[in-house]
Amino acid sequence: MKDQFASDNWAGLAPQALAALLEANGGSHAPAYGDDVWTQRACDAVRRVFDTDCEVYFVFNGTAANALSLAALCRPYEAVVCTPLAHIAADECNAVGFMGQGVSLLTCDDGSDAARRAKLTPAALDAAARRRRDLHAPRARAVSLTQATELGTVYAVEELRALTTAARELKLKVHMDGARFANAVASLGCAPADASWRAGVDVLSFGATKNGAPVGEAVVFFDRGLADGFEWRAKQAGQLASKMRVLTAPWVGLLEGGAWLAHAGHANAMAQRLAAAIDTLPGVHLLHAPQANGVFAELPRPAIEALRAQGWRFHEMLPNGGCRLMCAWDTRPETVDAFAADLAVACRTP
Amino acid sequence: MKDQFASDNWAGLAPQALAALLEANGGSHAPAYGDDVWTQRACDAVRRVFDTDCEVYFVFNGTAANALSLAALCRPYEAVVCTPLAHIAADECNAVGFMGQGVSLLTCDDGSDAARRAKLTPAALDAAARRRRDLHAPRARAVSLTQATELGTVYAVEELRALTTAARELKLKVHMDGARFANAVASLGCAPADASWRAGVDVLSFGATKNGAPVGEAVVFFDRGLADGFEWRAKQAGQLASKMRVLTAPWVGLLEGGAWLAHAGHANAMAQRLAAAIDTLPGVHLLHAPQANGVFAELPRPAIEALRAQGWRFHEMLPNGGCRLMCAWDTRPETVDAFAADLAVACRTP
Amino acid sequence: MKDQFASDNWAGLAPQALAALLEANGGSHAPAYGDDVWTQRACDAVRRVFDTDCEVYFVFNGTAANALSLAALCRPYEAVVCTPLAHIAADECNAVGFMGQGVSLLTCDDGSDAARRAKLTPAALDAAARRRRDLHAPRARAVSLTQATELGTVYAVEELRALTTAARELKLKVHMDGARFANAVASLGCAPADASWRAGVDVLSFGATKNGAPVGEAVVFFDRGLADGFEWRAKQAGQLASKMRVLTAPWVGLLEGGAWLAHAGHANAMAQRLAAAIDTLPGVHLLHAPQANGVFAELPRPAIEALRAQGWRFHEMLPNGGCRLMCAWDTRPETVDAFAADLAVACRTP
Amino acid sequence: MKDQFASDNWAGLAPQALAALLEANGGSHAPAYGDDVWTQRACDAVRRVFDTDCEVYFVFNGTAANALSLAALCRPYEAVVCTPLAHIAADECNAVGFMGQGVSLLTCDDGSDAARRAKLTPAALDAAARRRRDLHAPRARAVSLTQATELGTVYAVEELRALTTAARELKLKVHMDGARFANAVASLGCAPADASWRAGVDVLSFGATKNGAPVGEAVVFFDRGLADGFEWRAKQAGQLASKMRVLTAPWVGLLEGGAWLAHAGHANAMAQRLAAAIDTLPGVHLLHAPQANGVFAELPRPAIEALRAQGWRFHEMLPNGGCRLMCAWDTRPETVDAFAADLAVACRTP
Repeated sequence: MKDQFASDNWAGLAPQALAALLEANGGSHAPAYGDDVWTQRACDAVRRVFDTDCEVYFVFNGTAANALSLAALCRPYEAVVCTPLAHIAADECNAVGFMGQGVSLLTCDDGSDAARRAKLTPAALDAAARRRRDLHAPRARAVSLTQATELGTVYAVEELRALTTAARELKLKVHMDGARFANAVASLGCAPADASWRAGVDVLSFGATKNGAPVGEAVVFFDRGLADGFEWRAKQAGQLASKMRVLTAPWVGLLEGGAWLAHAGHANAMAQRLAAAIDTLPGVHLLHAPQANGVFAELPRPAIEALRAQGWRFHEMLPNGGCRLMCAWDTRPETVDAFAADLAVACRTP
Repeated sequence: MKDQFASDNWAGLAPQALAALLEANGGSHAPAYGDDVWTQRACDAVRRVFDTDCEVYFVFNGTAANALSLAALCRPYEAVVCTPLAHIAADECNAVGFMGQGVSLLTCDDGSDAARRAKLTPAALDAAARRRRDLHAPRARAVSLTQATELGTVYAVEELRALTTAARELKLKVHMDGARFANAVASLGCAPADASWRAGVDVLSFGATKNGAPVGEAVVFFDRGLADGFEWRAKQAGQLASKMRVLTAPWVGLLEGGAWLAHAGHANAMAQRLAAAIDTLPGVHLLHAPQANGVFAELPRPAIEALRAQGWRFHEMLPNGGCRLMCAWDTRPETVDAFAADLAVACRTP
Repeated sequence: MKDQFASDNWAGLAPQALAALLEANGGSHAPAYGDDVWTQRACDAVRRVFDTDCEVYFVFNGTAANALSLAALCRPYEAVVCTPLAHIAADECNAVGFMGQGVSLLTCDDGSDAARRAKLTPAALDAAARRRRDLHAPRARAVSLTQATELGTVYAVEELRALTTAARELKLKVHMDGARFANAVASLGCAPADASWRAGVDVLSFGATKNGAPVGEAVVFFDRGLADGFEWRAKQAGQLASKMRVLTAPWVGLLEGGAWLAHAGHANAMAQRLAAAIDTLPGVHLLHAPQANGVFAELPRPAIEALRAQGWRFHEMLPNGGCRLMCAWDTRPETVDAFAADLAVACRTP
Repeated sequence: MKDQFASDNWAGLAPQALAALLEANGGSHAPAYGDDVWTQRACDAVRRVFDTDCEVYFVFNGTAANALSLAALCRPYEAVVCTPLAHIAADECNAVGFMGQGVSLLTCDDGSDAARRAKLTPAALDAAARRRRDLHAPRARAVSLTQATELGTVYAVEELRALTTAARELKLKVHMDGARFANAVASLGCAPADASWRAGVDVLSFGATKNGAPVGEAVVFFDRGLADGFEWRAKQAGQLASKMRVLTAPWVGLLEGGAWLAHAGHANAMAQRLAAAIDTLPGVHLLHAPQANGVFAELPRPAIEALRAQGWRFHEMLPNGGCRLMCAWDTRPETVDAFAADLAVACRTP
């Protein structure tokens, strides 16, 4: 199968992740459940990346990272504000409701330009949190922001600050779904701390699987008080790896030398290359300029079918032929160019 | 760190698991969430191993495999009969109660010889399931058998059949915690089918992590009707891997060539070697002859301390210095001999 | 406090309910947990009302009746289709998600005339159930219809049949929230069976609290197979009354002599009287002709304030001054007339 | 049916409870969900009884009161220490696990004399809470004490203080199951505050159903911080009564004039009378002197059968013919004497 634009999780392990995994495996026995040197190194690497003494836990995937951290923030009768496109709302089979025993999602779409870019605004957050204050409806307790968003946009640091300020006024905790946090940081060019705790984020689901790791995401508590008991929570939820080094050694490989940012930057650049190559094709309509590693564009129906017949794989996620074209850490320029060329031909075919 | 007897999950990846993982990673992109060729191959390999058209799912670890499959069998007001030493009762932080929203465990210890070997008997099962039939107590719905047991014993096929016959009469479904199912099969020398579905098992948590895989256990539904909706259940519980081939390729490597049984047999043999080497040492008391890959023995307190001071790692799990000495797929005879020698010295030191 | 139009649950016990309660209390001791003669009589009375051998359970309130019966129909990764105005979606604090451990609600508002009357249509149901079939979203498993609806409309029997036929094709079970089922039956003038199981309903939350009972709603399983274990479920959820006769004697009082239908018919008639009296007032806009015991009308803002200042109580539930005026089993014509007169004055005051 | 010794919840409404209920019903409409004057009066009466500004909520039954308050104290991976005979452990169908999504019970029976009287001791509490501190087992978070106990004994105030002191050291919150708290207070002759918050209790399930109320128990938070959000929790769990005055008016009737203590004292006295009457009968063995309203005694098997044949109802709860004979607020001396006479005859019949 050729490389694809279906999802950044179709890619394999990045070399730095694989090398560390092999090194971790090469030695002798290692203590289980995270009491090993690789896990310690990975936690320390995360702390260095964020320049703060945060609490760090590793769970198996992004759904678990999101749902368990939100369950830690909320009681069953409480709710999380997010956009309708948020992965927790659209694509995690109500894991939050399961792990939080009924924790609700308050999705808000105010029809604004921001909403079309999968972003919350302080006004939309405020409206959602205040709409019901009586006890016949769930009580808003947290907000979840996805960075980079599900539509390939990136919150500016000031946007984050405005949102978390609004959240504080509403007494909401702030969760960030950072499945593609690396791509956001690479896009913003800021320090990871500036896009997270310095901007008011309390808990971050920090993803690596979409950025070259094999399995395992980090849950990073910047507000350490919120982490109380999280190791039991993860254990109980079947999210404590016995051979933890298999999850954490790749994190060491990716973080210690900075590969995580380089890979994310490369994926972002491939998205820019792809957007530039298809922007002016007849019938192609970019939803917005890509800011991370995904291009979102409406493609002509016949072109979609022609590309698929040629073996290209990508998701049609939105109405009217709205397609998602994801670039990964390993997407090659030649692949981008080949796809764009095939699309160009398809768009010009009557 | 030298190789240890702390747990078989302290060992790394077996060569066959690693080779398959590297091969799966070496190619191009692969579809996510299990729609890839490696996952298909792994499912087929499991079906061949069991010689039946079972339903196969891969989740991240044994706690998840046990708790999710029991949640599939039971409603929140129902209960699972097991021994007090069952991993689900003693060491999974009540994951069954969490994933099953209150599903209870009915542990029974009738003081019998079988109970001392961590085994259920039909009589104990019957007593536990019948003790309460009123609606003020949970209703028994399933039984969970661990094979090989938490004390290194192995149910004979006839024992299994007697238990599952009793379970059928009590209208209980039969779950098997097979974290070390490979060791049991290697010990019994029977076909895997004979120790599972042909003996009346409905659902098996089939472990590989303790037998050379990096991460990921299989949930095998022999009663396929019980599997309805399990893919949603796993997804919702944060147990659906995006890069599924990372979990499943190692299974292919271990199963297709038979390495899984060879590794288990080796670990069992090392346990026999270890038992033989320490059985007659002064102050050492084997709880019973090992049948799988663990040796359970009471060691003199000073010997325990001396061994630990020499860097040996193992768990003291039982009262009176009752220690668990686990052998893994990679435990070398030299390591066994070195440990036994150190123990011998320690036992003879006044 | 004068009688009000805030809710039919502001009314007290109807005489028939109270008389039966006093009779049940007057005698000697009675067995607890429903093993008493009053509970038996109440179950039998429900079966006679519905002319079928259904399973009948009594729980404490409507939220419990709805959430527990939907939890019995669905697994945590499954979903219930309903309207956004459904009580389970709007006013029960996500009890379904709590008791069903993550069971989701798929609300659908297709902007149709039916939707504006708080009704589902087969087309809307079909669209909601089919929108997502992949395992990243909850699987539709049931539909919940409120009869009479939250906006005081009533499904015709043919409408119910069309909906339940569509549900069967989608493999959905059919739940009916019948908090005001009595009002619907009184409005339709049909046999209770025709508006429930003969129309394809599997489970009914059958309300009495809004119709003159003190506490306690019935869960009626017409599909008796779905009731398996429900007594345990209710017990575990804190919904099994020890002095069950306190809940069930009033049901006997209301059902055996037909008072339940007479009360509902009276409340409906009061709503008709109220609607007729205010329909032509300047600035008053009835949302639709009332079919049950509630009048929904937009009132001028100054009139709302004037009425409240005069001590009238009613809920402003909808945008643009959309008010709900509920009539109860004990609403007197004089009260209706007095309210209408006050409203008339308020509407004519500049 | 004649009055019985089966359970104190076989009795009906006490006159004071009924009178208040009738008065509350006799007037006009009343606001729903507790915004009525009777509920306010009931909360205030509870505060006066306890001489402190506690938070008071009314739920439908004791199982709900216990399970919801423990769910408020614990996270799913946490545990509650209690005796094996505790109602939450033995007779509530694991409601704690359901409402707490996996909250575990750590039962401890150290074989002590106290354990035989259904009491915890500081030593047993300490052992249970400390037995496991690793994350593979639930973390102890609360202790639940039943007062009066399930075996009719009563903790002395000093015993309570010793237990709550131990709990504080273990960082455990203290819950009291006070289904028969009134009987305990009547037995101790102390102020209610002395047997609750002044003795270190954080949350009390305060029962009235067994003491003459129709339905509805109070949850009393002496540590008000623990009550945050409890009104939402109760609503979501189907435990918020719409016609709340039906639950709360009887509380007013029972508390305001002191009837609650008089009734409890009467029931206790009837137990004393019964114990004295049967203590010396041949073959009768009192387990211990009754301190509350239940007599626990081993009766000869033929006597048990003879009494039942005569229409007497009581529960055989313990091994070896161990029977529970419960006296209620309305148990008459004549009934006690008649039962004792029948038992005397039965015991003397060869």
